[in-house]
Parts: sequence; structure tokens; C-alpha cells
Amino acid sequence: MARSPVWASRSKTRGVVLDVIRAARTISRVELAAATGLTGATISEVVRELLGDGLVVETGRGAPTGGKPRTLVQLNPSARYGVGVQLERNACVIVVVDLAGHPVARTSFRGVSSMPPEQALPLVASRVDALLTTAAVEREKVLGVGLVSYGPQDRRAGVLLTPQPTDEWRDHPVAPHLAECLGLPVLLDNDAAAAAIGEYWMGAVDPSSTYGCIYMATGIGGGVVVAGEVYRGSTSNTAEIGHISMDVHGDECPCGNVGCLENYAGPSALVRQALETPGLARRLALDPDADDFLTEFARIAAAANAGDPEARALVERSARYLGHAAVTVAVLFDLDVIVLAGASFAVAGSIYQAVIQRELDRRLFARRAHSVRVVPSVNGSDAAAIGGAVLVLQSELTLGRGRPGIGARPVPVGAGEAP
Amino acid sequence: MARSPVWASRSKTRGVVLDVIRAARTISRVELAAATGLTGATISEVVRELLGDGLVVETGRGAPTGGKPRTLVQLNPSARYGVGVQLERNACVIVVVDLAGHPVARTSFRGVSSMPPEQALPLVASRVDALLTTAAVEREKVLGVGLVSYGPQDRRAGVLLTPQPTDEWRDHPVAPHLAECLGLPVLLDNDAAAAAIGEYWMGAVDPSSTYGCIYMATGIGGGVVVAGEVYRGSTSNTAEIGHISMDVHGDECPCGNVGCLENYAGPSALVRQALETPGLARRLALDPDADDFLTEFARIAAAANAGDPEARALVERSARYLGHAAVTVAVLFDLDVIVLAGASFAVAGSIYQAVIQRELDRRLFARRAHSVRVVPSVNGSDAAAIGGAVLVLQSELTLGRGRPGIGARPVPVGAGEAP
Repeated sequence: MARSPVWASRSKTRGVVLDVIRAARTISRVELAAATGLTGATISEVVRELLGDGLVVETGRGAPTGGKPRTLVQLNPSARYGVGVQLERNACVIVVVDLAGHPVARTSFRGVSSMPPEQALPLVASRVDALLTTAAVEREKVLGVGLVSYGPQDRRAGVLLTPQPTDEWRDHPVAPHLAECLGLPVLLDNDAAAAAIGEYWMGAVDPSSTYGCIYMATGIGGGVVVAGEVYRGSTSNTAEIGHISMDVHGDECPCGNVGCLENYAGPSALVRQALETPGLARRLALDPDADDFLTEFARIAAAANAGDPEARALVERSARYLGHAAVTVAVLFDLDVIVLAGASFAVAGSIYQAVIQRELDRRLFARRAHSVRVVPSVNGSDAAAIGGAVLVLQSELTLGRGRPGIGARPVPVGAGEAP
Repeated sequence: MARSPVWASRSKTRGVVLDVIRAARTISRVELAAATGLTGATISEVVRELLGDGLVVETGRGAPTGGKPRTLVQLNPSARYGVGVQLERNACVIVVVDLAGHPVARTSFRGVSSMPPEQALPLVASRVDALLTTAAVEREKVLGVGLVSYGPQDRRAGVLLTPQPTDEWRDHPVAPHLAECLGLPVLLDNDAAAAAIGEYWMGAVDPSSTYGCIYMATGIGGGVVVAGEVYRGSTSNTAEIGHISMDVHGDECPCGNVGCLENYAGPSALVRQALETPGLARRLALDPDADDFLTEFARIAAAANAGDPEARALVERSARYLGHAAVTVAVLFDLDVIVLAGASFAVAGSIYQAVIQRELDRRLFARRAHSVRVVPSVNGSDAAAIGGAVLVLQSELTLGRGRPGIGARPVPVGAGEAP
């Protein structure tokens, strides 16, 4: 950005080099110089430093190019780790991810989000500790924790501004509290933004592309990534696609808007619609009192995949609304790709992908300039948790802590300092 | 951005300093060092260079701060100029803008956009030449021309991808063609994006804020600015708010989408609605066959301002739709401010501003995090043309030509080189 202070350029240079190595998997110093525009001398110095820190390792030699064969460098996946914690209404998912973005350990459990945060967060902390022990990950190699959950949030303060998972969580300083329990830095972020950046880190999208992520678990959220950084806007409360209006005359949503997408197309809406379809509700033995509607949603999705006409009609209707919203997001952000992530897409992804792609192909304002491709997330239903861990790796390693970027990027809250 | 090559940092440093001087109006070297994070030595060197190029001048002394009084520097407004050309269906506006963003000359004329581009562009070029002569602006001080018009566009190639102003303009290389006629670099850009950046350059918004511009002239467009740079997305075809859907069951728009905002709230829709209101149409003597519906729209707006209940009802209905769309844009981009720009807001701005503000206050998802302020453009109906000139100044002076930024920033097309 025009404002990024020049004194930040050293850590930034290191970050640029590290990010190119990550994206390239293996690369020579000469190729690094070409890819970054840095001098050979600078590259050698930075790589020496990264080798010293154990972040990268030398590996074999590149194909001879006439000159002397070139030593290749690659990330050392086990040099650092990030922890991702996703807090959802129905469950809490914890993953430990290595420097390459690969999960090395995972656990999930229910009930925590129905507890008050004072009770829940120490429990989450103990599960994180247990998971690190199980995975035999040394604590000093852990850069921090990415705690991802619902928006809106006060990301700088690490506070949820929503009565989700329950009323007691609203205004609670979740990030500072969890940081205190763990003695590790904790970044709070939006689950959909996390899912979006996870795709980038895993190399699933062209690093230079502008892409959006539609995230559907219990609710519907979104995130946009521009050239490898999450679009942040003013306060990181961005791309809340579940609360854009499908109908100016629609019903009022608790969020204050009218005709919100989530109330037409979200899993709970779909379960409600299925329960209003007596034959279907009976056939699938749907439970009107189920406290976890994702199980009921999964049944409907499975029936739709199996060709049940009523189930399929409902899922396709939901997909058309999502396609309609995807057009709005693509028209405003001018996207190359839309990634579908989260538990609910994991069970009915193929139907959603086909319908959303069709809507984009038909309705996009700038389709003469380029098309928009719809793809499933490489991280499936753990996309948000994995992305949470990746956000910590990215913030600590390649962006430089607190460096001005697209919108605000806060300093991680908490006692622990990254090694 | 993570990828910005470090070798660009010299021209970037110069750009950062120049942009801070512009924003501060007058500033001392010590204050410049503080604001940029650069060393005093670097500041002195860069300022010496800018003084040498005549871009800045020394002016008086700052308030004594105990130490020796400080010499202040400020932009030299007449050191460089930018030309803005706006091509609209109903008219062509040309402005010459100085380094401070102030228009020093303006002309507008009709008919050009109904001609084929082969005929129109040489005419536009001759008008630009004439205007520069009238304003006594030396050609070597002109950095280039910002040609702004409808989207979608192929901005890199300088080509319009839309059958506007007329079918003949679609796929015509307008920027290279105009550059050839003028012998000056020509940047093609979106009129709404231009209007948005004009506000920043004029210091009308907090430089660090994220803001959107809703631009309404014959159609409705939009632009978003993040920390002083236009949000570009994949191909700069962004924030096309006129073609986001208000109703999933709405009528199909020529753009391919359904229920587009423009067809409910745009000036032509409003004129159509007024003509369907016999009493009003008669009272205002509206001409159903008027080829320039903006004149008819202005009549309706004037009547609304004067308290004609039917006219006011129509304008308020249009404003509610715009407010509804503004909520979608704010929910997705997380904006601090929304600027209303363009000829159509210039005539009915106060009604639109009040209604759009009310909708945002009521409906915004993240309103607990912060509110969104609606303000009129400081550049009024010439906002797009002035912004076009500003885009050239910004691209040449503070961003560094072709520097990677938010999305693509193309090298200006054309023969002439900036001094």
C-alpha cells in the first residue's frame, strides 16, 4: 500500500522470499531472485538467515542448466506450527497445522459453545494442550492460535460482537481470554475469511488471483482474498454474504436487514422447508426438535444426492439463491474464482457447485471480460479451522506482524512471543 | 502487497512522501519523517529531488517549537496537470486539473457520444488541445489523460466492453486511439472509480478510511477506495452496484442479471415511473420522447425538492432502493463512508443522502462495530471527469507507474512520456 512504511521493508523482504518458497514448493536462489525482483546478494543473505532459523532446508539440486547445478531450497514443514480453533454453534474443531499448511493433528467436540465463555475457553485451552502433546509438537515451535468464529467481531480487541454461539459470548474478550489460558498469541478472525486464506496457503488457487470464499456451516459467511491477503475493509467485518438481501420486500432478519440470503438458503432454512414438506419429512425421518439441524440438513443433502426429487428441489432452490448472491459478490469484487467451503457444502457440494456456476455464467455483468470459476475447498469441512492456523502462520511469517496491509491487521493478542 | 518488488521502493518512497505532502497541504521535513517512518536523511534527499523537479516548493516557516523554526514544504499546484475526459451517453466533459486536484479549466459538449468513435475521438482530442491552450497550460506539464466511461472495460487494453454510449463503441480501442490523436498517455478507467479517487485526492475523506462511491448520472455505478487506492479486483470491473439484484424474481436486465438496481432506481426508471403518473407528467410537462432523460429527471428532482408529493414519493422510492443496495455494498466491503457523486445526485442529493443514511443505520450487519456515513461528493457533477484527471496524477506521481497494487494497475497506453 502507498502508506506501508519503508522501515518495514526488511521483515517484508524476508516475508516475500518465504512466501515465494512456500508457493513454489522447491526453488533455487536464482529462481527466487527472478520471482521477487531482489538481487542475488539479498536472496543469498535472506536464505542464509532462513536456513539459520530452520524455516527452510536445502534439498537436492535443480536440473542442470548448462551452468553449475543449483541447490534447491524448500520450506521445512516441521519448523513451525500454527493452531486453528473454530468455534461453531454445534461444535468446536481444533487443528494443528505445519508450516506447509498440512494438518498434523485434529480434534472436535460438542457442547463447548453452549457453555458460558468463562467455562468454555479454559476447556478449549486444555484440549489444545492435549492435542499438541498427542501430536508431539514442541510448544516453542507453535507461532500462535487462530481463533475463528462468527462475525461481526472487534478483531483488534479480540471480541465477538454477536450473540453467537450464545448470548453470553457477545462482548466477551475471547482472544485475550484464550491467550491468557494458553500463554500463546491468539488472533481472532472471521471463519469464512480464514477458510478463504487457507486455500491460498495450500496453493489451491493462483497466488495472483482475486477470489472469494462462500462458507456454509450452520450459517453462511464469506471472505475475499486479493493477491494473497484477506480483504479487510474498515474493521474486517467484510463479505458477510449471509446477510445481503435477496428481496427488498423480504422478512426482517435479526441482523436488521430484510430478505437476508441465510433465511432463504441456509441449512436451518432448508431443514424448515423440508419439515413443511410432509412426505419428505416422513421419508427422511426428520426430527423437528433436533437441536443440531446440521444432522437433519445432511440427511436432506444425502437424499438429494441420491435423487430424491423433493429433497433435490429444495437443495437446488437453496443453490439458486446462493448463485444469485454469488453474482452480487462477483459483480462487486470482480472475482476470478469462488471457493465453496464448510461442512454444509461438504455434504451437497456437487449440486451447489453446478447451480452456482450456471448462475454466474448467465448473470455476470463483466462476463465478457472474464468468467468466474466455482470450485470446492481443498480443506473441506475443516477449512475454517485450518485457515485459522494458516492466518497465524501468514501473519507471523510472511506479512510481518502488524504491517499495514489491505485494511487493518492487528498485533496478535497475548503473552507468548513467536520464536 | 506481499509481492511488491523491493526494487520499486525508491520510486515508492518518493510517492509516499509526495502523497503525504499533498494530504497535509503544508508540512515540515521533521513532520514528514514522523508521518512516513523514513529517516531525516532520506526525507531531505527526497525533498531536495522534489524541489529540483519543481513538484514542491518551500513556503514560510512553521510555528517555533523551541528549536530553530522549520521551513515548510507544499505541493506546487502548477507544476503538473492531469486531463480528465468523461464520456457519457448524453455529454462529454473535459477538465484540466492541477497537482492539487483543482480544476483550472472545464468544457462540456453534446453529440460526441452519438458519433462513431472514429469520428468522436479526434473531435475530443481537438477539444482537449483547445482547452489546454485556453487555460495556458504548457503541454510538457501534462502528465496524461484519464478517459472515464462505462463498464465493463478491458482497462489494460483501453477497450470498452459495453455497447455504450452506442453499439459502435463496444470493443473499440478508445484509449490507444485517443492517445494517438493527442500524443499523450491515456488511461481508461471506470467513471465511478474515478469519482471515488477524486474524493481522496481532494482530501475530502480520511486517507486511511475505506469508502465507497455511488455514482449516478445516466446510469448507476460504484467504486471502492482502500487506503488511497481504488479496489481493482481481477480486471477493475468492480463495484458495479447498478447491476446487483434487488429481487431474485425481478425482470431480466440486458446485462444478464435479474432485478438490477438501475432498473428500479436509476434516472431513466424514475422518468418512466413519472410518465406513468399522469397528473405528475402533466404538471411537470415531461416529454415522453425526450432523448436526454436527465433533463426530465432534473425536473422531477426539482419538483421533489419543492415538495411535490408525487415527485417526492418517486424520488424517495428510488432512494430506498439505493439505500438497500448501499447496505449490500457496505456489508460486503465494510465501509466507513459512502460518497454520493454524479449529475443525478447533484440535483436531488439531500433527499437521497437522508434516505440512504437511514437505511444504513437500520440495516447494517456490523453497525455495532461502526456506523457508515453518507456524504455528498466535493466534486459534484464533474466528479468523474475530475477523478479521471486525478487517476493520472496519482498513477504517475505517487503510485509509480505499473507498480503492483490492489489488483492490476496498467501502464498508461500511448506515445507521450510523462516529464
